Amino acid sequence: MILALAGGVGGARLARGLAAVLPPEKLSIIVNTGDDFEHLGFLVCPDLDTVCYTLAGVNNLAQGWGLAGESWAFMDAIGKLGGETWFNLGDRDLATHATRRAMLGSNSLSAITAHIAGKLGIAHPIAPMSDDPVRSIVDTDEGELAFQHYFVRRRAEPRFRSIRFDGAEAARPSPALLASLEDPALEAVILCPSNPVLSIAPILALPEVRARLEALGAPIVAVSPFIGGQAIKGPAAKIMAEIGIATTPAGLAGYYGGLLDGIVIDRADAGSEAGSAALHATDTLMRNSDDQKRLASETLAFARSLR
Amino acid sequence: MILALAGGVGGARLARGLAAVLPPEKLSIIVNTGDDFEHLGFLVCPDLDTVCYTLAGVNNLAQGWGLAGESWAFMDAIGKLGGETWFNLGDRDLATHATRRAMLGSNSLSAITAHIAGKLGIAHPIAPMSDDPVRSIVDTDEGELAFQHYFVRRRAEPRFRSIRFDGAEAARPSPALLASLEDPALEAVILCPSNPVLSIAPILALPEVRARLEALGAPIVAVSPFIGGQAIKGPAAKIMAEIGIATTPAGLAGYYGGLLDGIVIDRADAGSEAGSAALHATDTLMRNSDDQKRLASETLAFARSLR
Repeated sequence: MILALAGGVGGARLARGLAAVLPPEKLSIIVNTGDDFEHLGFLVCPDLDTVCYTLAGVNNLAQGWGLAGESWAFMDAIGKLGGETWFNLGDRDLATHATRRAMLGSNSLSAITAHIAGKLGIAHPIAPMSDDPVRSIVDTDEGELAFQHYFVRRRAEPRFRSIRFDGAEAARPSPALLASLEDPALEAVILCPSNPVLSIAPILALPEVRARLEALGAPIVAVSPFIGGQAIKGPAAKIMAEIGIATTPAGLAGYYGGLLDGIVIDRADAGSEAGSAALHATDTLMRNSDDQKRLASETLAFARSLR
Repeated sequence: MILALAGGVGGARLARGLAAVLPPEKLSIIVNTGDDFEHLGFLVCPDLDTVCYTLAGVNNLAQGWGLAGESWAFMDAIGKLGGETWFNLGDRDLATHATRRAMLGSNSLSAITAHIAGKLGIAHPIAPMSDDPVRSIVDTDEGELAFQHYFVRRRAEPRFRSIRFDGAEAARPSPALLASLEDPALEAVILCPSNPVLSIAPILALPEVRARLEALGAPIVAVSPFIGGQAIKGPAAKIMAEIGIATTPAGLAGYYGGLLDGIVIDRADAGSEAGSAALHATDTLMRNSDDQKRLASETLAFARSLR
């Protein structure tokens, strides 16, 4: 059994690779919900949807988020009605948000996510990190901003000072996350190449999750989201610089504070050191499904070598 | 000051005609909300939206409901997610429902309707009959059905026995409806050519509305929705037959129980009698805006002749 913790685009790509090389009963994908938010009356769960759409193969490759073949008539009409247009909700994507909101009264976010993933044809289990709301709040030089207001509305332009995860102390880890952490058959935990501060930290902020990971017999391996000392996507690089975490294997290991047994790094970073964490260098940029599969296989082999 | 009570398509067309010949401060359009319903997490207000879209000139003429140039990506995606597809919500139309639902917590339906109508460029005031929920429930040979379930989902196929307006006794007439009824300058009340049982009766079921209309000094004139003894649209004819109301001027006058001072009827029904109600025969089918305007002018002149 492999537990994968994932956030946005990079995390979703590795999760798809893992799903391509592991049967559904051997993989549990747990997704960050810290960047979820209420918008235009919907509950929008960007990371859950990115992971689901990517695993279903219906994600928009050019755009990097949302659905392929999306249309925007709703947003156009919202604009004409004087509504908020800074966060794009596609016509098809809206069906996901409407389904989720309509089900929320009588279903957990875990159950709703399983329903949506099933309808998208995904065989592997995908679950939120928690069924309780956790909201990432970024403290900036313009004051505190809800995550999407900081990240999308203000395009990550305000200076990032710190982040907190509202509700995390009271939130229970989701049943799927708890079950994986307690599974005696757990072989490894993979931290997907998602932004450690924005996407992985909210999961680690849930009660007992960090403590259970620290006490775990199985190896914990992160796939570095950095290549050649750079974050792959623009805002992440700026944020990491503002946070003061070096975009290197050592910076990553330091940020996770000794949690990692190993890090899969890019060849461009070969020769680095990262404290007590073992390193495995390979090509980490995932351009297509072959890249995803190969990186997933190598990561699993590396993790198993650390047992 | 003219008060117009309106329901669906026919009512919306005459309301548009009235708006074309009266300045905004001389017309109050009050719309049935008995066929409103909660669907996929939205509050759908079919009659309010039909009236607003028609007055804004953005209604879909071919379809008879919804917006011109509509697209259906959302419905397609809802179907793929296993959601309910029996009630069509267009991508652009959804922006109206989402805006309404997002505003509902802190705004009355009257305020929301005024906001949406304003954004659509409508100068004339349009208001719901009440800010409180009223829900038409149809008793049929298949049991009681919420109105849209009867009308759209079951295509009005079950045999109509009776209709009740859930919540009507506790609902307050909207501020705009009360203000019109109390306005000393009120010259006439026009019952637009909407289905009397489905669209006008819910308005009359509100506390005091019927009593105030009966006590009114100004004339009350209905524009008949029947032509040549037939209801213009299919389901209405079937429903009227099942209710046992003759689709004639006399049937209409009888249904309203002496409330009407006059009825505008189609030339095809000229020569009819309708108890104490005066009759004015003209062409009542509204194919275009010229028809709407002419019928509105004739109706106003006829009403003024009854003062």
